[in-house]
Amino acid sequence: MSFNIFGRVFRFSTWGESHGPAIGAVVDGCPPGLALSEADIQPWLDLRKPGTSKFTTQRREADEVRILSGVFQGRTTGTPISLMIENTDQRSKDYSDVANAYRPGHADYAYDAKYGFRDYRGGGRSSARETASRVAAGAVARLVVPDVDIFAWVSEIGGDAIDPRNFDAEQIGRNPFFCPDARAAARWEALVDGARKDGSSLGAVVECVASGVPAGWGAPLYAKLDSELAAAMMSINAVKGVEIGDGFAAARLRGEDNADPMRPGADGLPHFLANHAGGIAGGIATGQPIRLRVAFKPTSSILVPVDTVTREGDASQIVTKGRHDPCVGIRGVPVVEAMMALVLADQKLLHRAQCGGD
Amino acid sequence: MSFNIFGRVFRFSTWGESHGPAIGAVVDGCPPGLALSEADIQPWLDLRKPGTSKFTTQRREADEVRILSGVFQGRTTGTPISLMIENTDQRSKDYSDVANAYRPGHADYAYDAKYGFRDYRGGGRSSARETASRVAAGAVARLVVPDVDIFAWVSEIGGDAIDPRNFDAEQIGRNPFFCPDARAAARWEALVDGARKDGSSLGAVVECVASGVPAGWGAPLYAKLDSELAAAMMSINAVKGVEIGDGFAAARLRGEDNADPMRPGADGLPHFLANHAGGIAGGIATGQPIRLRVAFKPTSSILVPVDTVTREGDASQIVTKGRHDPCVGIRGVPVVEAMMALVLADQKLLHRAQCGGD
Amino acid sequence: MSFNIFGRVFRFSTWGESHGPAIGAVVDGCPPGLALSEADIQPWLDLRKPGTSKFTTQRREADEVRILSGVFQGRTTGTPISLMIENTDQRSKDYSDVANAYRPGHADYAYDAKYGFRDYRGGGRSSARETASRVAAGAVARLVVPDVDIFAWVSEIGGDAIDPRNFDAEQIGRNPFFCPDARAAARWEALVDGARKDGSSLGAVVECVASGVPAGWGAPLYAKLDSELAAAMMSINAVKGVEIGDGFAAARLRGEDNADPMRPGADGLPHFLANHAGGIAGGIATGQPIRLRVAFKPTSSILVPVDTVTREGDASQIVTKGRHDPCVGIRGVPVVEAMMALVLADQKLLHRAQCGGD
Amino acid sequence: MSFNIFGRVFRFSTWGESHGPAIGAVVDGCPPGLALSEADIQPWLDLRKPGTSKFTTQRREADEVRILSGVFQGRTTGTPISLMIENTDQRSKDYSDVANAYRPGHADYAYDAKYGFRDYRGGGRSSARETASRVAAGAVARLVVPDVDIFAWVSEIGGDAIDPRNFDAEQIGRNPFFCPDARAAARWEALVDGARKDGSSLGAVVECVASGVPAGWGAPLYAKLDSELAAAMMSINAVKGVEIGDGFAAARLRGEDNADPMRPGADGLPHFLANHAGGIAGGIATGQPIRLRVAFKPTSSILVPVDTVTREGDASQIVTKGRHDPCVGIRGVPVVEAMMALVLADQKLLHRAQCGGD
Repeated sequence: MSFNIFGRVFRFSTWGESHGPAIGAVVDGCPPGLALSEADIQPWLDLRKPGTSKFTTQRREADEVRILSGVFQGRTTGTPISLMIENTDQRSKDYSDVANAYRPGHADYAYDAKYGFRDYRGGGRSSARETASRVAAGAVARLVVPDVDIFAWVSEIGGDAIDPRNFDAEQIGRNPFFCPDARAAARWEALVDGARKDGSSLGAVVECVASGVPAGWGAPLYAKLDSELAAAMMSINAVKGVEIGDGFAAARLRGEDNADPMRPGADGLPHFLANHAGGIAGGIATGQPIRLRVAFKPTSSILVPVDTVTREGDASQIVTKGRHDPCVGIRGVPVVEAMMALVLADQKLLHRAQCGGD
Repeated sequence: MSFNIFGRVFRFSTWGESHGPAIGAVVDGCPPGLALSEADIQPWLDLRKPGTSKFTTQRREADEVRILSGVFQGRTTGTPISLMIENTDQRSKDYSDVANAYRPGHADYAYDAKYGFRDYRGGGRSSARETASRVAAGAVARLVVPDVDIFAWVSEIGGDAIDPRNFDAEQIGRNPFFCPDARAAARWEALVDGARKDGSSLGAVVECVASGVPAGWGAPLYAKLDSELAAAMMSINAVKGVEIGDGFAAARLRGEDNADPMRPGADGLPHFLANHAGGIAGGIATGQPIRLRVAFKPTSSILVPVDTVTREGDASQIVTKGRHDPCVGIRGVPVVEAMMALVLADQKLLHRAQCGGD
Repeated sequence: MSFNIFGRVFRFSTWGESHGPAIGAVVDGCPPGLALSEADIQPWLDLRKPGTSKFTTQRREADEVRILSGVFQGRTTGTPISLMIENTDQRSKDYSDVANAYRPGHADYAYDAKYGFRDYRGGGRSSARETASRVAAGAVARLVVPDVDIFAWVSEIGGDAIDPRNFDAEQIGRNPFFCPDARAAARWEALVDGARKDGSSLGAVVECVASGVPAGWGAPLYAKLDSELAAAMMSINAVKGVEIGDGFAAARLRGEDNADPMRPGADGLPHFLANHAGGIAGGIATGQPIRLRVAFKPTSSILVPVDTVTREGDASQIVTKGRHDPCVGIRGVPVVEAMMALVLADQKLLHRAQCGGD
Repeated sequence: MSFNIFGRVFRFSTWGESHGPAIGAVVDGCPPGLALSEADIQPWLDLRKPGTSKFTTQRREADEVRILSGVFQGRTTGTPISLMIENTDQRSKDYSDVANAYRPGHADYAYDAKYGFRDYRGGGRSSARETASRVAAGAVARLVVPDVDIFAWVSEIGGDAIDPRNFDAEQIGRNPFFCPDARAAARWEALVDGARKDGSSLGAVVECVASGVPAGWGAPLYAKLDSELAAAMMSINAVKGVEIGDGFAAARLRGEDNADPMRPGADGLPHFLANHAGGIAGGIATGQPIRLRVAFKPTSSILVPVDTVTREGDASQIVTKGRHDPCVGIRGVPVVEAMMALVLADQKLLHRAQCGGD
């Protein structure tokens, strides 16, 4: 088992650094015969693309994906699908600041401690740029689970949460924050812009729902769907918390309040009167929507000076110039969706491996 | 990759049901030459053992572990270590209630949806009894990371949290709740007993710290230490949320407040002025204590009647008799510690695989 | 990935030493709902059982298997199936000979070099006794592929091969050599008995055919069916060579002679006029019988003295007393069949994971 | 676990088809700090390159490798190394012959049976062109095991074997057959050229030796070094047999003749008087040279007409035009070396994971 591969039978691996010539993903184990072209992938990449508003990094990348293998006559062949995105806007700047001193909260020091040195240009492998590869792979995964509907949104920035009563899915695509509450979106404009002008950054919470997952996907214990999803989400840059269903709030409920009562449903399947469990019981999908929340910490590359040490161990302060997202959680939305799709595609195939059927 | 195996090079798998003849774990990939006997494992099992107070299930199990392989002349040989615990107190009761109707919040319905049927005796494979196997395997893992100090505690029950100012590690072993705050422990007696008498149940939050983890363990992205730990914790029965370091609270901080500033340390290593990151940056240990929080939902097997459906799809109500923990999070403490040890043992070996050294 | 686990989605792991209290296997990922009891496993174990003729080791083991988990009301539940076989005839002998000096050709020296020491009692983990666990797991695997017919036989002992014209499958069970050629069996009586009396040992070739494998199982390249089968067979004690189909003989054929010509078949599927490929092309089953050959070296524990060194590095000679098979390949027959079944069960599930269908 | 990834902690995956825009490999888990540039890889690719003599396919590929990630300032960073080779000489020909009818012995029919269709251009994923990616990855692996010396040669073509007494390692690079016996090389000129002119093809046997492998690498049973190597070699196109050490010949030896006697060595390590075991006992390296033999079947794309069926199931004959190797085993030599290096790099890291040390 290794370090840059995710999944069990539907797997993908990613490669590439922020300032190398390209980044990419290889998707392995994809079912054959699915219609796939670059046009199926590009729209998802465009959603994640940097430089589209003043609330994200100003790096300009076309993020154009090329399919290099695994597709013939417009259909997947069942062999590895190689996806490549060229880096085009690596700015030739002086990296001596981050090369010599560690950004607190960033991977700088830990990489040096592990590997002895690091590619410091734009964060190298630890850059959120890697998430473009996930979004590309996730677009393929969506084709594997066509009956599953996945969507995510930002529910909180810098502690300012949406009002659930204002939730309007239509709004998500209408503001630069993937925010389903138009009033919150308006407040966040000032909030995020203020942080940006201060040279600071903000954390965020992203929520994601997948509906249409049939009861039975998932597995007990070490491959619990909760566990797979938590691993997937925690693998995203800057993520430090994951809740399935009510998560930490469930720890404050009594048993009878946390139960999701069942009634006979019109279609012969149970109809659930609540979804505290986030659609997963015993690690296995119940047929309800899968529901989770993901915490993104604030970007650690900021203009506000922070105490640090140099590679030589001397006291210093660091100010991170360069182009950075004032709130990395915002562009996390398409990434969370991609990881959800990648996990569910894998689970679908695993379920039919063990239990048959389609 | 499969369904009952955890880890990458230091791996364990578990087997067994609540009411079968025995349960067990097989630990694979353990370094050779470690001193190991049943006496190294039993004390950890005793901490998790049921029936030791009125605040846990009244099932009485000796939970005596036997080492069946992998040890010769008192030392691990490097071959698989088979650990077995016999079940001795399966009560011969009538299971027709849970056999025919689904406990909302429990794995009952999901198992049936996946497998077509289930072992309903005491929850079968989905019973928290399985966690004894983890604790046994975790005791072996501790021997692999002797310089790491791991301890966990309950920090919140039913929404009633400890006061961090009262934190006293000595208290943890002095009350039936693994509670480090003597005043909270006193409150919880009434709280948990009340829930028990009401036939209800409570959720809990468990926190865990591992100190002595050297900077460098872990890996970027799909094997981030955050990701491995989240998967490990989410694989425990009843867990629905995981936070690394400040977790969701970090999403409410500004970049400069979430940074863990660094100063030159006396030992040549950086001295950190805070630990919002929970000891992990970019997926790799920074040398600070690893810190995480785990949310346990309330037990779903309760005496309070809940609306449900039968296997045939008819409306019904269910009341779960039998012996159950009123707060399953309490006995989760040794399990969380075990999973922490199991992940860290694996990470130590993975780190030296790639980067050498010891 | 680790060291005592085999398979991808249908997996098994084994544990236990020759002279420990027990040995066992855990089968993970088994489809639910299959009828399974000890009676489905025991007959296969009995075929491999030692002590049934003077041509095998005289150790007497009942080799009674117990199912400890994963079965409920006579059917597999989809959770891990724990199989245990107690060791009953470990003879309390003086092991100082093999403890202090290395048997050339045996694992003794290599284990010490790797682990620093070894369990020398009866070969410990490197004993062929471990293969009983495989046979037990293989019996479960057979239930996963009920339409596949697997059988193996000994085709050569000590360089004396059967005559293919005498091949009679009925004979295999009628002599202590699993020999399909009655005349060869008669010759082998003298051959093997002579080696036994000389305190020597003989190698053997085992052949195995699996018919009923549908075209499509398997995968290209790194999971080629050839590759999976070769890994499986080479994992058996004493195996040093594997051929798929014509194997090394194919290297002496011209392209047109090695081709397996195809004609339209009565059932709409191609009818092949030859099977040089052993039923696998490009790593994928063609629908023809899977055919392979496995080379077993002679037992290395012999009474003939051999030059060796002691643990301290001094020159010595070694004579291995104890009870050993004069030709370990003979009892390899049920083991080869078991490994074939285990690979094919995994391949069936992998195929339907990626390609659906049943 | 999936289908195009090989290795456990040092892993690589490959992607790409014969007539797609490019092929490539991603190497994951590589130790950091190794000096690496394209110049370390290119020479090995040049050895495998097609079109260098009339004894190989006349396709002309520059086979220029580009490193797209994982290297910074000339050293490996410990993150994935993406290697890409552009396809430049895909000939735009009419593939209707192989598109509609199956080449006996080729993967054509099996791919269709598995995936429902296939990329028939030049064999698509099943083309030996894929092996260029392995050679590139293998060049990286060699850097991980700098003290191991790996070399391979052709020992037999079309049944005509070298004379071991003529073995001269210097000769291997001096003829187009990687042949260590100058006289055999002379004979093979006529042999291979004759087969080429006949529109036929020949099989071959490749041998490989790795010296400098320390005692202790490898593992028992399911990760036996024999097993890992057999899987690696069998994953190469056209390979149908693998022998470790004496292989099938060992099955014809008596125990005392197959033993590799040990004498005290000058360096404190045992000195072996023979190497029937091919340097591996009990799955673990003994410190002797690792020795194996690999059987390549004759190329199945030939001009000699062979009976076959069409996709529609009608009787037909097929003649494969296009550019093909008359003896695919010849160019298998650098591929066998690469797979040996890839397995040993993985084993080195696995060994130090479990047992520490360097």
